[in-house]
Amino acid sequence: MSEAKKIPYKIYLEEHEMPKYWYNVRADMKNKPAPLLNPGTLEPMTAADLAPVFCEELIKQELDNDTREYPIPQAIQDFYKMYRPSPLVRAYCLEQKLQTPAKIYYKFKLNSAIAQAYYAKQQGLKGVTTETGAGQWGTALSMACSYFDLDCKVYMVKVSYEQKPFRREVMRTYGASVVPSPSNTTQVGRKILEQFPGTTGSLGCAISEAVEVAVSNPGYRYVLGSVLNQVLLHQSVIGLESKIAMDKYGIKPDVIIGCAGGGSNLGGLIAPFMGEKLRGEADYQIIAVEPASCPSFTRGKFAYDFCDTGMVCPMAKMYTLGSGFIPSANHAGGLRYHGMSSILSQLYHDGYMEARAVEQTSVFEAAEQFARVEGILPAPESSHAIRVAIDEALKCKETGEEKTILFGLTGTGYFDMVAYEKFHDGQMTDYIPTDADLEKGFAGIPKIDK
Amino acid sequence: MSEAKKIPYKIYLEEHEMPKYWYNVRADMKNKPAPLLNPGTLEPMTAADLAPVFCEELIKQELDNDTREYPIPQAIQDFYKMYRPSPLVRAYCLEQKLQTPAKIYYKFKLNSAIAQAYYAKQQGLKGVTTETGAGQWGTALSMACSYFDLDCKVYMVKVSYEQKPFRREVMRTYGASVVPSPSNTTQVGRKILEQFPGTTGSLGCAISEAVEVAVSNPGYRYVLGSVLNQVLLHQSVIGLESKIAMDKYGIKPDVIIGCAGGGSNLGGLIAPFMGEKLRGEADYQIIAVEPASCPSFTRGKFAYDFCDTGMVCPMAKMYTLGSGFIPSANHAGGLRYHGMSSILSQLYHDGYMEARAVEQTSVFEAAEQFARVEGILPAPESSHAIRVAIDEALKCKETGEEKTILFGLTGTGYFDMVAYEKFHDGQMTDYIPTDADLEKGFAGIPKIDK
Repeated sequence: MSEAKKIPYKIYLEEHEMPKYWYNVRADMKNKPAPLLNPGTLEPMTAADLAPVFCEELIKQELDNDTREYPIPQAIQDFYKMYRPSPLVRAYCLEQKLQTPAKIYYKFKLNSAIAQAYYAKQQGLKGVTTETGAGQWGTALSMACSYFDLDCKVYMVKVSYEQKPFRREVMRTYGASVVPSPSNTTQVGRKILEQFPGTTGSLGCAISEAVEVAVSNPGYRYVLGSVLNQVLLHQSVIGLESKIAMDKYGIKPDVIIGCAGGGSNLGGLIAPFMGEKLRGEADYQIIAVEPASCPSFTRGKFAYDFCDTGMVCPMAKMYTLGSGFIPSANHAGGLRYHGMSSILSQLYHDGYMEARAVEQTSVFEAAEQFARVEGILPAPESSHAIRVAIDEALKCKETGEEKTILFGLTGTGYFDMVAYEKFHDGQMTDYIPTDADLEKGFAGIPKIDK
Repeated sequence: MSEAKKIPYKIYLEEHEMPKYWYNVRADMKNKPAPLLNPGTLEPMTAADLAPVFCEELIKQELDNDTREYPIPQAIQDFYKMYRPSPLVRAYCLEQKLQTPAKIYYKFKLNSAIAQAYYAKQQGLKGVTTETGAGQWGTALSMACSYFDLDCKVYMVKVSYEQKPFRREVMRTYGASVVPSPSNTTQVGRKILEQFPGTTGSLGCAISEAVEVAVSNPGYRYVLGSVLNQVLLHQSVIGLESKIAMDKYGIKPDVIIGCAGGGSNLGGLIAPFMGEKLRGEADYQIIAVEPASCPSFTRGKFAYDFCDTGMVCPMAKMYTLGSGFIPSANHAGGLRYHGMSSILSQLYHDGYMEARAVEQTSVFEAAEQFARVEGILPAPESSHAIRVAIDEALKCKETGEEKTILFGLTGTGYFDMVAYEKFHDGQMTDYIPTDADLEKGFAGIPKIDK
């Protein structure tokens, strides 16, 4: 019996095999990620500083660089059992199509929404606020809030609100209220509209508005879908599940690939593998993939910067293009945040992972190739990871190496059919920002010597 | 340990537990479904008559009323292993929300696409043609053709082609060509356009065009996603998987519910349960749910009728509203075919199942309620089944009966957000055809005394 016969195409975990804790990669980092700074005093944000914005338990998690394992609350374990586990899937047809000796596995993304909603409920809050760009995070959070019976106010970047009315309706189906940002419902929104009357918004604006609403409404807190330490902690369940599934069948990945916008997808997938690497127990090649049109890792600065346009949020040390950076208008593939998780930034800075920037037409080519053989129409975001997984598999074809490749797959591409249509019709273009373009964004990065 | 703890929320089958054969419910029917008739001679269609239209192996399956078990070809079993098995899921949160003692299970739909594409490939064909309404069947077939490297030509009802451009792009992503129907590419299309210049098309038109293209292009055959006996045969894998999963944990459904358009969803889910009922081995309450605006079972005639508008297809004996019937313009919930599977029609006629017609606003209410607690945004089609599952569970709440309810869930509602938006905005209306409306359709049913 061949190996391919012994190992199922999809590896499901039994309920008793599922992770019982989240893994905090910071515990194993020699160089800890830089703390969030208070933009007024430039001092590290304390728990008290963060209390008006975030849930208490989440603040603990955000600031805790030491605890390696966080027990997953029973209610969240129960949710995972119902909603999860997502299988670890072997892209067998893709391997055959590429005629590569490489073995390619992928794992679906889970996200931090359910954990953040749980802690908000535990704290007795009425609801939460958040921002969303393309709408995936907003959808996940709406669903989680519906599960825990919490109110959910979503500030959706105006250009997406108008271009993706269906995403908006999905959120409404889950009971969320959705406001296009910038809006007249907040001070910061009104200020931005005054300064830039025709603006179609950005993630940075929407974050500022959502934070203002959380802080000024009793019983509300703000939640964020990426970038933060707490998000990477919850997302570690993706990597933990992948690792348990692989260990079950004695599979060891050689290359681990994730797309990188704010870092939630990549950071979750690599967490336990990075832990082994940090502790010197195993080695893995870890690759972050980002759009060439929003190249935070590959062309950004490692510096303290604002997380939002309104500059109301704490500052984070990260690879950044400057909080004023907005990808070119033809950009369709998501992953458009100007910055990056502080944890991943530090790990990249310390040489524990590499990064690649890819152009969007090549990303959609990979997406279509994957769809046609694997039967899943992927979101453009995770198609960045697919692009590099295919590239690596094709390298193996040349060298004859039988590497095992693991990548993270996010949600559906069904809401991105306008972009797919452009691609099919040959209307999709690429754009790589010039150095001069980037300098404009860099000019907005404050000079903080920390 | 309570029962709920012992039985997992999602029951997955191991690969070795998966069905190795399709179940042909006709073998257990005392009154066999009426044969397809040649519209010229009014004699039963022979294999030779059908050869220009369908694949050879599929013709055998279509005409075979006797063989109870059809072995599933290894290539299709392999595909199932990769793409399947879909879990049997307990709607635990919905039960809690309804506070019902009923236990509700649902099973995702698979469809016949992969089997039909497989046999076309086996026969050495170049490609297949088909029609699609909302686009779900067209998408499934495009994917299957892409898997087996077959050309796929889809005739998509014009109103859907224009209202659902994203579905069209999904099919293109899988490599299919998609033509709005009626079109100028066929004789029958040109004829229909001449007669009804402004028509936005119907499934019946699109079938006629797809059949013409298959018959007039060497190396092509026509495939259909519902109604036919072969489709119900392949779809039996849904019911078989459900039954194996339930048997594994000693669960016996009391009520089995499926939505009914042409019958593929319902017929697949109920197959092995109906078999036990036909053989007198067990009893189940089986409920077909259809839209009140397209009530084939509950208000149609049981008669031989045309399957398509162009009257080029064989005639089938079925519950029908007449091949000229088109649901009212406000109808949003799919399931709009004028007829019904001959197998299900015979079984309904013989009293083995019941049927209910439900109005669309109540269907979307059920869909939203399901989404909010189960985290899956369902297609309007299967939301018909959800509506009745909830109704039955609420009856149990009144009576205290702990019935076990099983229903079938089709694909995503992500392409139906225009309808969801109407529902959220209070713009969705209901329409029940008057007797006079129905009489117009009935007038087109030929008088055939068989």
